[in-house]
Amino acid sequence: MFHPKSIAVVGASPRPLAPSNVHFFYPLLMYGYPGKLYPVHPSADKVHGLKAYRSILEIPEPVDYVVSAIPARQVPQLIRDCVTAKVKAVTVFTSGFSEIGTDEGARLEREIVGIARQGGVRLVGPNCLGLHCPKAGLSLDGGIPKSSGGVGFLAQSGGNARELVVSAAERAIFISKGVSFGNAADLNESDFLEYLTADVDTKIIAVYIEGAKEPTRFARALGEAARSKPVVVLKGGVTKAGVGVVASHTGALAGSRQVWETLCRQTGAIQVHHFDELIDTLAAFVYLKAPRGRRVGVIGVGGGASVLAADECENAGLEVPALPEQIRRQLLEYTPPVGVGLRNPLDLDTDGFMNPELAARTVRIMAQWEGIDLLILSILPGILLAHAHFKVLGKHVEAVAKVAAEMQKPLLVVLRTGGVAKSEEAAQAMQADCQKAGFAVFRSVDAAARAVVRLTAYHGRWG
Amino acid sequence: MFHPKSIAVVGASPRPLAPSNVHFFYPLLMYGYPGKLYPVHPSADKVHGLKAYRSILEIPEPVDYVVSAIPARQVPQLIRDCVTAKVKAVTVFTSGFSEIGTDEGARLEREIVGIARQGGVRLVGPNCLGLHCPKAGLSLDGGIPKSSGGVGFLAQSGGNARELVVSAAERAIFISKGVSFGNAADLNESDFLEYLTADVDTKIIAVYIEGAKEPTRFARALGEAARSKPVVVLKGGVTKAGVGVVASHTGALAGSRQVWETLCRQTGAIQVHHFDELIDTLAAFVYLKAPRGRRVGVIGVGGGASVLAADECENAGLEVPALPEQIRRQLLEYTPPVGVGLRNPLDLDTDGFMNPELAARTVRIMAQWEGIDLLILSILPGILLAHAHFKVLGKHVEAVAKVAAEMQKPLLVVLRTGGVAKSEEAAQAMQADCQKAGFAVFRSVDAAARAVVRLTAYHGRWG
Repeated sequence: MFHPKSIAVVGASPRPLAPSNVHFFYPLLMYGYPGKLYPVHPSADKVHGLKAYRSILEIPEPVDYVVSAIPARQVPQLIRDCVTAKVKAVTVFTSGFSEIGTDEGARLEREIVGIARQGGVRLVGPNCLGLHCPKAGLSLDGGIPKSSGGVGFLAQSGGNARELVVSAAERAIFISKGVSFGNAADLNESDFLEYLTADVDTKIIAVYIEGAKEPTRFARALGEAARSKPVVVLKGGVTKAGVGVVASHTGALAGSRQVWETLCRQTGAIQVHHFDELIDTLAAFVYLKAPRGRRVGVIGVGGGASVLAADECENAGLEVPALPEQIRRQLLEYTPPVGVGLRNPLDLDTDGFMNPELAARTVRIMAQWEGIDLLILSILPGILLAHAHFKVLGKHVEAVAKVAAEMQKPLLVVLRTGGVAKSEEAAQAMQADCQKAGFAVFRSVDAAARAVVRLTAYHGRWG
Repeated sequence: MFHPKSIAVVGASPRPLAPSNVHFFYPLLMYGYPGKLYPVHPSADKVHGLKAYRSILEIPEPVDYVVSAIPARQVPQLIRDCVTAKVKAVTVFTSGFSEIGTDEGARLEREIVGIARQGGVRLVGPNCLGLHCPKAGLSLDGGIPKSSGGVGFLAQSGGNARELVVSAAERAIFISKGVSFGNAADLNESDFLEYLTADVDTKIIAVYIEGAKEPTRFARALGEAARSKPVVVLKGGVTKAGVGVVASHTGALAGSRQVWETLCRQTGAIQVHHFDELIDTLAAFVYLKAPRGRRVGVIGVGGGASVLAADECENAGLEVPALPEQIRRQLLEYTPPVGVGLRNPLDLDTDGFMNPELAARTVRIMAQWEGIDLLILSILPGILLAHAHFKVLGKHVEAVAKVAAEMQKPLLVVLRTGGVAKSEEAAQAMQADCQKAGFAVFRSVDAAARAVVRLTAYHGRWG
């Protein structure tokens, strides 16, 4: 199903901003989908330069995968045609089914599921974006790199699925297979979770879920998944307001916050509470070796920043041990005794921090300190940029990368910009360099600490 | 003190990255300080093209304000010279006093305070960056706009003071007067807080504090400040680790987390827990009218995003009322019945969202809904950019600004980028446009909701 050799998009449109283009044609064309692509349109001869067909049944070759972007009332006939044409899977992008809360919507949803099941066609959705599989040239976004990775995802929402794919790509976190499954009328969260659990390409599973169609089966599937690989869960609809939105979004029964918290705790799934946390947690699992414990060493610039970093680390659940005299002595060989803070977090002066060799030397000394299990290097790209050339940024990363390669402890790089435009530009460049060098990059000490604590807890539980 | 007509920097250096240059000369020169500027250097004739002097005493004209960037042991003599030269105030940037924890450091600090007090010179610091006052041409950063605003700040840390000034400027939040006061050996947190409370240019006070030198006086000063204007407090050192760092950073006694929480609650000061929250809270107070209540309407794109936005609003303490049928009918006049979510949060399809006129019309309809007190407009600049020209972004802001001008309710704009570089570029441009149009801009619904709840709570308490 994730490797269709041919795709028909039913409801193709010459209108540039038509959803069928925005969500399907453009991504497939931009991403260079290598299979056959058939637009289905009631009258046009060509769409996007491709020969268009009046119906699925007119396409002379086998069609593996169909996308439905036509009005809900026309979908039952389309599914019948798909049965006739021996289509394997249909993503029903179309909305207007059970999620709109009308009898008619619910009836239509039952009808298409009935036709599909009887005819041996599997449905994804309705009310979703469907499949993402870079290896097969299937993407929810045309602009991201074509790289495959180890993160599999299931996301009830199409928008969140796309945001996940795009934000993860920016962090150089890539996807094995993923799916936006909307109302989950036929194939549901449990089907996809079981699939990703068994999938050898998938090393980590990310879940955005609003409600389980089959709660008992899902609980079992989540337990099995969490026993075999890390599963990170973001539950949408944990407040009264959120639950209300879920009902009209995917028609799911949201369940209470307590039920989900208990479920995650009991199964060993990793619960996160914000979308950004989901991405940060994936970054920790994709990039970092497992730390042996929770003791962190922090290297940064600024006394006040050190105070806040210490607070953030401890609040996240890390320990911040005091710097031993022996490490302090090693640092004193090249740093001045005043104007810097030779403690943990280490507060280097701008001068010491500007020199890539000294920065790398500092990382090496801190990394050799037996009293810590992991290291956070907090950088202000704006400060570096204000006092040096852009090139120095790259040299910094290069020098630190050499040290990091020999380190037995995970190193987390934090790029802090305070939202400042020119710092952001420098941070983007450094982030790309860091990721190439294999560093996990975060945008605050807080985010880094919270993500790595989840990694540590996971390895504490599962070994 | 905040308006010196002449400044001497003692410890001027020809070395480009010398701290005296990075923290004082460059900012003053770049910012265009209009008064007289005297470098003091043991041998050079000129520094930065300015005539240099051997000592304060050799300067032929009166010197209002002196910056000490020489080693700690030389500072007592400098303060004696300042007394002789009738200098009004000295910022002792020099560190190596009580914060290093040695008897010698503590003794030196007592010595300079003794000399200064006897001689009628006031000290800021030691171990700090001193004064910021855009109206007087004094700045902690040379690159920010020369604009003055209504935010006064006191920050124990120099780095945090500078970050505050720079991050705030990026949000078009400008400063009346501010100070980084380090060890607070002479002038302390209470002096500056009392000053800012009385200062007519200061409408809001931001505080980064590690510990109070005079706790009883500070508690009273905080109460008085909070009764006269909003005071936002970020306490550094609320964990065991943080408290440990504070001791060696500014030598302050940090006090427990509970003590500070109680103090803020009792005085009516607004406590924040992260640096970003400090800036977000300032943005809410600077930009927003006081909402009459906590009922929020949210306009955005994406069903899953709506679910998470509802959760974030409710978790922050806002109410998210259901959309009434009458508003829904008005929206239905131009939006399709399916593929969008006509609820609260409102989930517009990409199509409807792309059109600036429709976006503005939607804002108008939602703003007229009696059931809400404030409106959050959550925008994905990356999506706008992917489907349209860069110019459309500006048109969006323009169209919405027209509506906002007639609105009686506060409007918060959220620009979500997911950290994606190209979206970030679009967001920076939109943010600048939004701020020019008078909108408060945030980077997540969560951040916006938490900031506006603080504003609402403040007005609930103080009216």
